[in-house]
Amino acid sequence: MKAYGELIQRFKDARVLDSVGAIVGWDQHTYMPPSGAAHRAEQMGFLAKLGHRMVTDPRMGELLAEVEASPLVKNPESDEAVNVRGIRRIYDRAVKMPPALVEEIARVTSQAQNVWAEARRRSDFPAFAPWLGKVVALKRQEASAIGYKESPYDALLDEYEPGATAAEVTAVFAELRGELVALVAAITSSGKKPRRDILTRDYPVDRQHVFGQAAAAAIGFDFRAGRLDTTVHPFCTGIGPGDVRLTTRYDAHAFNQGFFGILHEAGHGIYEQGLDPAHFGTPRGMAISLGIHESQSRFWENQVGRSRPFWEHFFPRARQTFPGTLDDVSLDDFLFAINDVERSFIRVEADEATYNLHILMRFELEQALLTGDLDPIGVPGAWNEKFKQFFDLAPPDDAKGCLQDIHWSMGGLGYFPTYTLGNLNAAQLMEQARQDIGELDDAIRTGEFGPLKAWLNQKVHRPGQTYMPRDLIRRVTGRPLSHRPLLTYLRRKYEPLYAI
Amino acid sequence: MKAYGELIQRFKDARVLDSVGAIVGWDQHTYMPPSGAAHRAEQMGFLAKLGHRMVTDPRMGELLAEVEASPLVKNPESDEAVNVRGIRRIYDRAVKMPPALVEEIARVTSQAQNVWAEARRRSDFPAFAPWLGKVVALKRQEASAIGYKESPYDALLDEYEPGATAAEVTAVFAELRGELVALVAAITSSGKKPRRDILTRDYPVDRQHVFGQAAAAAIGFDFRAGRLDTTVHPFCTGIGPGDVRLTTRYDAHAFNQGFFGILHEAGHGIYEQGLDPAHFGTPRGMAISLGIHESQSRFWENQVGRSRPFWEHFFPRARQTFPGTLDDVSLDDFLFAINDVERSFIRVEADEATYNLHILMRFELEQALLTGDLDPIGVPGAWNEKFKQFFDLAPPDDAKGCLQDIHWSMGGLGYFPTYTLGNLNAAQLMEQARQDIGELDDAIRTGEFGPLKAWLNQKVHRPGQTYMPRDLIRRVTGRPLSHRPLLTYLRRKYEPLYAI
Repeated sequence: MKAYGELIQRFKDARVLDSVGAIVGWDQHTYMPPSGAAHRAEQMGFLAKLGHRMVTDPRMGELLAEVEASPLVKNPESDEAVNVRGIRRIYDRAVKMPPALVEEIARVTSQAQNVWAEARRRSDFPAFAPWLGKVVALKRQEASAIGYKESPYDALLDEYEPGATAAEVTAVFAELRGELVALVAAITSSGKKPRRDILTRDYPVDRQHVFGQAAAAAIGFDFRAGRLDTTVHPFCTGIGPGDVRLTTRYDAHAFNQGFFGILHEAGHGIYEQGLDPAHFGTPRGMAISLGIHESQSRFWENQVGRSRPFWEHFFPRARQTFPGTLDDVSLDDFLFAINDVERSFIRVEADEATYNLHILMRFELEQALLTGDLDPIGVPGAWNEKFKQFFDLAPPDDAKGCLQDIHWSMGGLGYFPTYTLGNLNAAQLMEQARQDIGELDDAIRTGEFGPLKAWLNQKVHRPGQTYMPRDLIRRVTGRPLSHRPLLTYLRRKYEPLYAI
Repeated sequence: MKAYGELIQRFKDARVLDSVGAIVGWDQHTYMPPSGAAHRAEQMGFLAKLGHRMVTDPRMGELLAEVEASPLVKNPESDEAVNVRGIRRIYDRAVKMPPALVEEIARVTSQAQNVWAEARRRSDFPAFAPWLGKVVALKRQEASAIGYKESPYDALLDEYEPGATAAEVTAVFAELRGELVALVAAITSSGKKPRRDILTRDYPVDRQHVFGQAAAAAIGFDFRAGRLDTTVHPFCTGIGPGDVRLTTRYDAHAFNQGFFGILHEAGHGIYEQGLDPAHFGTPRGMAISLGIHESQSRFWENQVGRSRPFWEHFFPRARQTFPGTLDDVSLDDFLFAINDVERSFIRVEADEATYNLHILMRFELEQALLTGDLDPIGVPGAWNEKFKQFFDLAPPDDAKGCLQDIHWSMGGLGYFPTYTLGNLNAAQLMEQARQDIGELDDAIRTGEFGPLKAWLNQKVHRPGQTYMPRDLIRRVTGRPLSHRPLLTYLRRKYEPLYAI
């Protein structure tokens, strides 16, 4: 069908342009010389404008309408139907946004990020408050423009997690919360502590790089079709078929940051490499959501990477790679150290258990911001109150409190819950993988990750956007997303470690 | 004036897109993972198509006509007049080319390059001959489409060296040729030879990198606004204000290749960094020609970089950087070695004197190809005959003969003469710089390159495309381009070295 062909070609062109932007963005965070920043901003702005123009071209709307009325999309699981649904989602969202609002959001969040960075540096929330106010007001306008049934939050969440609603997320988070708080309390009052110094000894950066790269390759990241570089804020970017890039950062006295950072990004990268190259540039060959993407990074970082079988394989290698550093450390010591649980102030440094509490409180706060129940100026007070509830701690200042994350300054309201959705998805997928594959730990123990990667490829990666996130999880695991697998996983891990 | 503003904005947009392509191209030759090649080709093709569409938009033609008829461009040296002339040149060239021809040239040269690479590997000219035939036929069509007064060669040369003609280049090359051949003959029959082993000793790559980068910074390349990376075929790319990238390649037993390669690319980079950032994206802020660009690379690589004062400063530093390697070498030994002259087969490995002979013979051959006087199948015979004339040598095979360069396979007929134009320009500019600055050698001897760089910035870089290449040289040096400065320079250097 001719209209379908033209629709796909136009959409693909926009995606090729996106993939050019991905290189430009990667370069900005890895190799761009400092003085290149101003021109880089101009390039990025130009690409964004051009990309938006391509996607919102009125011809796209005509073609969509024509194809949607045709028999081509009758079977909802056909490639054509998947593509048309996916393009429709992106097109509708794009055309609903008035260009003036798009530009204003870009302008304000660009400035707000600079103000935020400076405010965090000086722990000066009042300096940031008016900008947070502007961002929230604009995101409220965005939610109105996009439209929603129940909550304006739904309109924002949908950008990151298609089809998800605040109500649905609230329900699963509520179930998680009670038991998780109790588990963390049991752990922290157990009196048991790992030998933490193990992870802050000498880990020369060049050896961390070799060790991390070898582990990423072992779990299945293809370095002929990818790279690993260093940056300030680690990320993974899929440029296109055969080109997926990981970044990490190293500290010669912090093993976790570099190594688990690499496993995390490699998980994202394996998802990108697992998309169907024949469908590149169309929804059928695109990742479905941040919550599914994050499930893949957490899967390898935590479900696999912090497990005993994984270290039965890698611990002897770590000892060889860092001579002398781990001589007096047993596998048990090491496992306990990398699974240390402690209430702390900073989300990105949090362990597997407390991490989700950081997300839960942000999810509540940003909903209140959006509905207007929370005035931006009241954020520090509300933050500290919630922190007391969730962690029984008082942040020493706003830099270690409500100013720690960049997300709100960049307009990313609705983004936070996808992190915990990722953790929930990862646990539920791992439960299913254990059933489907069998003897999984034995394979991992011998450094054999092929079957697990193949399972993820087939079940999660190759479908692209064939299923909405919630449907994908239900199809693969046979039940809807639940808090249960994550809690079961955390209990099984921590109860023996902390003798609870 | 509104039309001028719109014209500039449209042209700038196309240039911003070009600058995005420059990053993508740089990445391709530095960090792209091997499996990314196919998608990269798609990205590059897409950007080229889009850029061509932007430049040839009919609205550009309307705007040009309107502005050209206005008083805004009355003063031919005004920024407006310079920009309108420059845009007109690019627009006319672009719209004269039928899109089908553009596509066919892209397709054929892309394949021809692969065939050439394989033919060179096997020294199999007959395999390449039909592709050379196709390329020549297409370039003849291109010349017809572009139009010319005297020779089809002019239409091709004009792309690289605006305003230059084959007749004009032939005249200056003819004057160069006789004396140059005689000089080379005198040198090679002098019986004197430098100690060549000096340059093939141990030069560890990491130290070459440090040494070369320090030299590039010393002569004035700003590394806050640029980088140096490694690649297979070195190049320099100007991405935009504040971002200019050099690449080089190292061989642990070839000092010249790495070091003079860096100086050469740094010369290109200093030109790019010297363009007026306020005029980025318009002809007023763009390099004027390959012949002027090459003059800047040759200026620093040869005029400065192979001079005694330069090494009076750097030789002690080289000794420190490569401990032990140069202990038994005097400054005189070293200078003689880096100024070794020898007839050889490969252009890119040639010295300053014989290099131009390689260009002269290519210039003659490609004119004959274009007029039809030389059939592509006859290239090896014609090549070897000319090589005998110019060098009194017979290439052992076509790989070391007519198959050595990529240029013809990529459709670059008309490109070669800009290399020798660069050498001529560089020598003439240096003569003038010596007069204008005074005590130049004393400054260089103490590592002070600021005045020289400032002179080039002011005279050559900042004007952008204000003057055509030939006018720029005449304005800066007070006379038209001549073979005399280069010959005088070569004589002054080689006569004492070879006791001629």
